[in-house]
Amino acid sequence: MIRAYAAHEPGGKLEPFEYDPGSLGDEDVEIQVEYCGICHSDLSMLNNEWGMTRYPFVPGHEVVGTINAVGERVKHLQVGQRVGLGWYSRSCMTCEWCLSGNQNLCPQAEGTIVGRYGGFAEKVRAHQGWVLPLPEKLNPLTAGPLFCGGITVFNPIVQFDVKPTDRVGVIGIGGLGHMALGFLAAWGCEITAFSTSPDKEIEAKNLGANHFVNSRDPQALKALANSLDLILSTVNADLDWDTYISLLRPKGRLHFVGVIPNPLSVQLFPLIGGQKSVSGSPLGSPVTLAQMLNFAGRHHVEPVVEFYPIEQVNEAMERLKANKARYRIVLTFKNS
Amino acid sequence: MIRAYAAHEPGGKLEPFEYDPGSLGDEDVEIQVEYCGICHSDLSMLNNEWGMTRYPFVPGHEVVGTINAVGERVKHLQVGQRVGLGWYSRSCMTCEWCLSGNQNLCPQAEGTIVGRYGGFAEKVRAHQGWVLPLPEKLNPLTAGPLFCGGITVFNPIVQFDVKPTDRVGVIGIGGLGHMALGFLAAWGCEITAFSTSPDKEIEAKNLGANHFVNSRDPQALKALANSLDLILSTVNADLDWDTYISLLRPKGRLHFVGVIPNPLSVQLFPLIGGQKSVSGSPLGSPVTLAQMLNFAGRHHVEPVVEFYPIEQVNEAMERLKANKARYRIVLTFKNS
Repeated sequence: MIRAYAAHEPGGKLEPFEYDPGSLGDEDVEIQVEYCGICHSDLSMLNNEWGMTRYPFVPGHEVVGTINAVGERVKHLQVGQRVGLGWYSRSCMTCEWCLSGNQNLCPQAEGTIVGRYGGFAEKVRAHQGWVLPLPEKLNPLTAGPLFCGGITVFNPIVQFDVKPTDRVGVIGIGGLGHMALGFLAAWGCEITAFSTSPDKEIEAKNLGANHFVNSRDPQALKALANSLDLILSTVNADLDWDTYISLLRPKGRLHFVGVIPNPLSVQLFPLIGGQKSVSGSPLGSPVTLAQMLNFAGRHHVEPVVEFYPIEQVNEAMERLKANKARYRIVLTFKNS
Repeated sequence: MIRAYAAHEPGGKLEPFEYDPGSLGDEDVEIQVEYCGICHSDLSMLNNEWGMTRYPFVPGHEVVGTINAVGERVKHLQVGQRVGLGWYSRSCMTCEWCLSGNQNLCPQAEGTIVGRYGGFAEKVRAHQGWVLPLPEKLNPLTAGPLFCGGITVFNPIVQFDVKPTDRVGVIGIGGLGHMALGFLAAWGCEITAFSTSPDKEIEAKNLGANHFVNSRDPQALKALANSLDLILSTVNADLDWDTYISLLRPKGRLHFVGVIPNPLSVQLFPLIGGQKSVSGSPLGSPVTLAQMLNFAGRHHVEPVVEFYPIEQVNEAMERLKANKARYRIVLTFKNS
């Protein structure tokens, strides 16, 4: 039996819960959870905002722990090894996308908290392909959020071949945005942070931003016309996207990793005239995850986190819900 | 003096008109016009739809002719050589975009019919950088439309690194779309043509389409879900773009070369989940133009055109306006 924390209805409290995981699959790995980040999608899933939550619902998909057991065919991972697990726990490994290294785009990819039990638990299981060894240089206490929030902002840097000479804007300095600043700074880019909270300027600069712009100041935005190669939007709000597109240089890209409430509406002519793109991306593949972990370790890119013991998981969820977390919350377990 | 055809007010008839071009610039070339295609943008400019037309207005930016004179510093082009000229006639040649081979994205790029006199004339001038020699294999009678319509659809194939293994959709089988079919077929792609005119099926397939879909048939569209790598929209109409985005495979791109009447509105979630892009592009650089001309010559990609003598230019414009041209119109000059 695995002891976990589960909600039994949309918006319900997380309560102690036990389940029988059955026998361990040949290619699967069981992780003893030490730390588990809380992501905004844990909250969305708990509230069944996307209509795909199964109850009892065990959140948690930013797992760091040690391997407790491995299936018979697992050769490259050993019991006792420190590893992490993110949003995806399995993919088919036989489709075109899996075979070409784009396992994150596999139509059968299984979410760690979708139709199965996640990482707010003493143990969690996953396919060996999605369990990533933690590099020694990486701090395990803060590494959990890299496995969902981190890879969400790191993946587009890789996918769209961002160069150290690029000028990149980051909209929203929160759970995702603060990690984007760290990665882009280590990548060598010139970074402009856009935020509606002027009090975040100093912190944004400490995190790696070269410039800070109050995104409610139309003059400050206008001054940046035609200056950015990439703008990464991490917010969940409807902004004036035409304005941000006007800040892009020719061939520039406005890229979304945060879902916005309403359809995206933009003028087409500026896209045509400047050969600009608007795009989105989900989390990354196992290889991109491994690259990110290595890069984060070498460059000391570390999520800024607050810790809560797993027993206070409901308080932690409330704090996240109230938008008070600076910037991510990590749950700690007895065996941490 | 150069004899041309000009309109003197928005929507006005084109009438014989003469102007003094002054002395020929050191780096400029004067072309004796033999053929000049009519593009829909000639009509838009004549009607001042974009608010930037200067009258008297001489349309024409799909020019084929022979060099009549060259400036003192012109070394690589000779009098008598057959050349072409398209939408752009000049760019600064010193900005970052010009120096990196993206002259079409130069903020100072001069349009052949914007603030100057175009190619509905016995002669037209341009900077040597934008005057392209016509490869011998290319038919000069039909080459004009390549210089605007052709490069508009060829450029994204180069810019976005389309591969012969890609599955590409083309929306709209008209002036732009019919050339897109020819280029993509020669490029080796698997092509699906989307059209509201079922009677264009045979012709679309003759032009290179492998599949033809009546875009007013929702079932036929639905059957193509997740099947295309790139969709090129050449139409000037507001369609249900979310449907077309659903036809894209992961990493797919919906690309616009035709301007639509209203802002583009799309659901963001499918872009994020499938790492999809929406984009646009203008005409190409001189090097891309040269590649296109060479490619078109080698692969016999030839615009389908109707001919009108320049003296019947107003009838030709009316035919274009009535959407009757199959698929482009080329004006011929006495010296043709």
